[in-house]
Amino acid sequence: MPGDTTLPPRENETSRGSYPVSERNKLRRVHERGRYDREAVHAVLDAAMLCHVAYSIEGEPYCTPTIHWREGDRLYWHGSSASRMLRQLKAGARVCLTVSHLDGLVLARSGFHHSVNYRSAMCFGTARIVDDRHEKEHALETLIERFYPGRARLLRPLEPQEVKATMVIGMEIEEASAKMRAAGVGDDEDDYALPIWAGVIPVRTVVDPLEACSRLLSDVPVPEGLSGFAPG
Amino acid sequence: MPGDTTLPPRENETSRGSYPVSERNKLRRVHERGRYDREAVHAVLDAAMLCHVAYSIEGEPYCTPTIHWREGDRLYWHGSSASRMLRQLKAGARVCLTVSHLDGLVLARSGFHHSVNYRSAMCFGTARIVDDRHEKEHALETLIERFYPGRARLLRPLEPQEVKATMVIGMEIEEASAKMRAAGVGDDEDDYALPIWAGVIPVRTVVDPLEACSRLLSDVPVPEGLSGFAPG
Ligand SMILES: Cc1cc2nc3c(=O)[nH]c(=O)nc-3n(C[C@H](O)[C@H](O)[C@H](O)COP(=O)(O)OP(=O)(O)OC[C@H]3O[C@@H](n4cnc5c(N)ncnc54)[C@H](O)[C@@H]3O)c2cc1C
Ligand SMILES: Cc1cc2nc3c(=O)[nH]c(=O)nc-3n(C[C@H](O)[C@H](O)[C@H](O)COP(=O)(O)OP(=O)(O)OC[C@H]3O[C@@H](n4cnc5c(N)ncnc54)[C@H](O)[C@@H]3O)c2cc1C
Ligand code: HEM
Ligand code: HEM
Repeated sequence: MPGDTTLPPRENETSRGSYPVSERNKLRRVHERGRYDREAVHAVLDAAMLCHVAYSIEGEPYCTPTIHWREGDRLYWHGSSASRMLRQLKAGARVCLTVSHLDGLVLARSGFHHSVNYRSAMCFGTARIVDDRHEKEHALETLIERFYPGRARLLRPLEPQEVKATMVIGMEIEEASAKMRAAGVGDDEDDYALPIWAGVIPVRTVVDPLEACSRLLSDVPVPEGLSGFAPG
Repeated sequence: MPGDTTLPPRENETSRGSYPVSERNKLRRVHERGRYDREAVHAVLDAAMLCHVAYSIEGEPYCTPTIHWREGDRLYWHGSSASRMLRQLKAGARVCLTVSHLDGLVLARSGFHHSVNYRSAMCFGTARIVDDRHEKEHALETLIERFYPGRARLLRPLEPQEVKATMVIGMEIEEASAKMRAAGVGDDEDDYALPIWAGVIPVRTVVDPLEACSRLLSDVPVPEGLSGFAPG
C-alpha cells in the first residue's frame, strides 16, 4: 500500500505538540520525570546511536539492538532482506522501540535511594516495510547522513542489488513517552547527618581519534566533520 | 513456590559450557559473529550498566530499560512493588533481556559496507519474583556490590518497609546468545582503490570525576575504589 510508506509531513510541522497519552504510554512510576512532548522525545531519540526494538514472534518477546534514524514522526531501521526480525516486522507487527542514555550513577546514604541519572524514550507503533525504491534509497541516504553529514555523495554509489538485499522498516510513532532523571542525591532527611559518602559519578559516551583503514590510499584526506556525530 | 527462587549453583559450576541452541536463539544473520558459550555471554552482560527487557502485556510488546545484575545463570532486576512491568513479570511472563555495547563506527567506501563494532547478548527465560525475604535482601546487597564493591556494609541499613516496597525479579537464563563485531573496514575488493576515506571511529563509555553531594558532611572521605566499576 503506497499510503503506508508515504513520508511524514515536514519536520517543522510535526515537531510541535505532544503525543497522545493512552493506557500504553501513560507514566505511572515516578511520573514527574516523564514528558510526552515531541521536543523531549525526539531529543532523546536523536542523541542516541542505537536503540532496542521489542516485538513478538509467536507470542515470544524479542529485544533486538539496532541503529535507528528519524524523520519527523517516523522512525526507521534497516538490515538484511532475509532477516528474521525484519521479515517478521514487515508483516506489520507491533513494536516498542526504546532508546536509553545512562548519564550518571547516584550514590545515596541508604541502599534504597541509590539511583542513576538517565534519559530514555519509549515509542509505540506498527512496523511497515519501505518498499518504494525511491523512498528506500532516500531513507538509506538519510541513515548515512545522520551519522556523517555530507558523506553520502562522497561514497561509491549504491548498487541496485545492494538496495535489493536491504530491508528498510519505517514506523510512525503513535504513542511515545520520555523519562529522565538529572539530579543529585535524594536521601531521607535524617540520613543527611550520616558520615557516609554520597554523590554522583557522571557517565559519558565519547568518540576517540579516527583509526584509518590500513588499505587507505596514501593521499586521501580525512573529510571535515567526520566525527561530527557527538553522542549525547 | 520455593523452587522458583532458589539460587542457582555456584558460579564455578555454571560458568562453563554453552547455552543450548534452539530455533529461538540460533544466529542466522552473520552467524560467524555469534557465540553461545557462557563465558562470552556473561562477559557482555557483566560489562554493561543497563539492559533492555522485552515482554508483552495483552499481546503488545514493551521494551523497558533497567539495571540488571547476575549470579551464575540467573539475571536479576528490581523496582517498585507497584510497577506495572514488574507486576506483569511477577506472574511468570516470558522475557528477552538484551545488553548492547557500541564500540565503534565503521566507515567504508560504500554505503553498503558501513557498520558498527559492537558486543551484545540476548537472554531468554521466564521471570520469577524473588519473594523469600532473605534471598531478596541478599539480591539487593548484590546489586549494590556489583556497582560499588564494599559499599553495602557502609550504608544505613535497609528498613523493612523499604524491602517490602521493592520487587526483585530473577530469571534463569534458558537460552542465550552473544554477537560481536570487532574489526576494521570490510570493503568490496575493487573499492579499496577508491580515494574515499575509510576507517573506524572508536566509541567508549567513560566515568568522570565524582561530584560530592552538596550536603555531604565535611569530614567524610571518598571511599577507595568507588568508581571501581569500569564500564566496558
Ligand atoms: C538507564 C536506566 C536504568 C533504569 N534502572 C531502573 C531500575 O533499576 N529499576 C527500576 O525500577 N527502574 C529503572 N529504570 C526506570 C524504568 O525504565 C521504568 O521507568 C520503571 O521501572 C517503571 O516501569 P513501569 O513499567 O512500572 O512504569 P510505568 O510508569 O507503569 O510505565 C507506563 C508507561 O510509561 C512510559 N515509561 C515507563 N518507563 C519509561 C522510561 N524509562 N522511558 C520512557 N518512557 C517510560 C512507557 O510509555 C510505559 O509504557 C531505569 C531507566 C533507565 C533509562
Ligand atoms: C549496537 C548494534 C547496532 C546494530 N545495528 C544493526 C543495524 O543497523 N542493522 C542490522 O541489520 N543489524 C544491526 N545489529 C545487529 C542486530 O542486533 C541483529 O543481529 C541483526 O539485525 C539480525 O537480526 P535477526 O533477528 O534477523 O537475526 P537472527 O540471526 O535471525 O536472530 C536469531 C537469534 O540470534 C540471536 N541474535 C541475533 N542478533 C543478536 C545480537 N545482536 N546479539 C545477541 N544475539 C543475537 C538471538 O538469539 C536471536 O533470537 C546491531 C547490533 C548492535 C549490538
Ligand atoms: C546500586 C544500587 C541501586 C541502583 C543503581 C538503583 C537504581 C534504580 C533506578 C534507576 C530506579 C528507577 C527510578 C525511576 O523510575 O526513575 C530504581 C527504582 C527503585 N529502586 Fe533502586 N537502585 C539501587 C538499589 C536499590 C535498593 C537497595 C532498593 C531497596 C532496598 C531499591 C529500591 C527501589 C525501588 C522500590 C524503586 C522503585 C521506585 C518507584 O517506582 O517509585 N533500589 N532504582
Ligand atoms: C551509517 C551507515 C550504516 C551503518 C552504521 C550500518 C550498520 C549496520 C549494522 C551494525 C549491521 C548489522 C551487521 C551484523 O549483523 O553484524 C548492518 C546490517 C546490514 N546493513 Fe547496514 N549500515 C549502514 C548503511 C547501510 C546501507 C547504506 C545499506 C544498503 C545500501 C546497508 C545494508 C545492510 C544490510 C543488507 C545488512 C544486513 C547484513 C546481513 O544480515 O547479512 N547498510 N548495518
